[in-house]
Amino acid sequence: MQIIDSIQAMKSLVREVRSKGQTIGFVPTMGYLHQGHLTLMRTAKEKCNFVVASIFVNPLQFGVGEDFEEYPRDLGRDSKLAEEAGVDVIFAPTVKEMYPKGYSTFVEEERITDKLCGESRPGHFKGVTTVVTKLFNIVQPDLAFFGQKDAQQSLVLKKMVKDLNMNLEIQVLPTVREEDGLAMSSRNSYLNSSERQSALLLSKSLNMAQNLIEAGERRVAEIKKAIHKLITQDTLARIDYVEILSLPDLEEVEFLEGSSLIAMAVFIGNTRLIDNLVVEV
Amino acid sequence: MQIIDSIQAMKSLVREVRSKGQTIGFVPTMGYLHQGHLTLMRTAKEKCNFVVASIFVNPLQFGVGEDFEEYPRDLGRDSKLAEEAGVDVIFAPTVKEMYPKGYSTFVEEERITDKLCGESRPGHFKGVTTVVTKLFNIVQPDLAFFGQKDAQQSLVLKKMVKDLNMNLEIQVLPTVREEDGLAMSSRNSYLNSSERQSALLLSKSLNMAQNLIEAGERRVAEIKKAIHKLITQDTLARIDYVEILSLPDLEEVEFLEGSSLIAMAVFIGNTRLIDNLVVEV
Repeated sequence: MQIIDSIQAMKSLVREVRSKGQTIGFVPTMGYLHQGHLTLMRTAKEKCNFVVASIFVNPLQFGVGEDFEEYPRDLGRDSKLAEEAGVDVIFAPTVKEMYPKGYSTFVEEERITDKLCGESRPGHFKGVTTVVTKLFNIVQPDLAFFGQKDAQQSLVLKKMVKDLNMNLEIQVLPTVREEDGLAMSSRNSYLNSSERQSALLLSKSLNMAQNLIEAGERRVAEIKKAIHKLITQDTLARIDYVEILSLPDLEEVEFLEGSSLIAMAVFIGNTRLIDNLVVEV
Repeated sequence: MQIIDSIQAMKSLVREVRSKGQTIGFVPTMGYLHQGHLTLMRTAKEKCNFVVASIFVNPLQFGVGEDFEEYPRDLGRDSKLAEEAGVDVIFAPTVKEMYPKGYSTFVEEERITDKLCGESRPGHFKGVTTVVTKLFNIVQPDLAFFGQKDAQQSLVLKKMVKDLNMNLEIQVLPTVREEDGLAMSSRNSYLNSSERQSALLLSKSLNMAQNLIEAGERRVAEIKKAIHKLITQDTLARIDYVEILSLPDLEEVEFLEGSSLIAMAVFIGNTRLIDNLVVEV
């Protein structure tokens, strides 16, 4: 497996792969890989001839005071895991390679980025859509793979691909969880052991919501109230948001109908975790 | 020559052309073709196997109260001229095809779009970069051709292609002029005969500026003053802007040094015309 840090070298390799008629699968990541990422990579390898994974902690999608500096990085460990998962090339550019001095062009989705994580993290999705556009142009994949854990991200990127007529398809794979239900995330590494226990509140409250809905509850306010109640019992937990919105347009609803997203961001200590559940009624 | 109005059909054709190993040249236009456009098309045909020209009056790049509705349109005439110039396909989508209901993704260059035409026409370049990104994704050209008459547009698009790592090269060809010096523009069709005479002030004042510079003038303020003086002698003319900026960053300068752009926008009656000159000292 190759590790490439230059855009030009990555583009040359892509040209070579394409000229052989091979399909390209792409898994963009910020590294510190977990089973969620590795599942995306294995699936990419099943569906495409050639798999590129990018590892790039994108400063543009971090706000002031967020964890850009502390975000865990371990390229040695990541390359070993990626290779085992079937990745053919890791693209790991520097910040300067991606955003040279004078960089000034941005891509922005303006309709579904002002809620949920977009509301809590202004500019976050502008950073995501910009870097992903660049990566798509560099890697030129047929398929790009994302995890359902970042539900809003997938919706925003699908909208971007459709609106800008990009030549690829986005595939979203289910959230991969630890045995006890915690959604896998590189940020879980920030948690100490008591926080790790409290972090279960996210998946537990989603399970509870699902049970309520299966028992017939359709009132969004009641479901949100029950989730709030469960999470706020724990003094380590502080809710950033709990929302239930329609899919795929992320509009507010009073009663569940059709396809909806229950999404939450919760600080456990200083660590902000997200989780979500798609419900169909 | 084919005329295609569907994005999907255009993409299919591009796939077919690409699969034969042919190169694609692209000339994006708003139609009502003149010799400037036709020179771009003939050059595209010399340099590439297959030439696509788009004809799309892009509502996104027109401001409120501008001439989107009145902009001249004549697809019959345009297709005849384009075919003679060697164009293989005209892509002429409807507004609804390009911006369906709920459209929400935009591309924006944020550094050199706040001056010159960007200052006079807020949102104009965001409309340009967005539509051109879409067109580039649909047509997937190797080379795209633009005219020097829209000097700032070319600079913005080159910056966008570089920043977003797009897989094509932008070529800028010299402004094509009428025999008396007027820069060709679809908007010249708005001019009545006395306005047509006054419109010569733009190229005349650029020639005068060039003469001053050849005679040794380096003071930007003096050159601008002379241009203002010449243009404001005519009561039909109203200056929108006259600027002299460094290239390629469009920064203000006090004295000419290296490569500079003398750019102007002048209303002749109700018609806003632009022209420019690149000077090297």
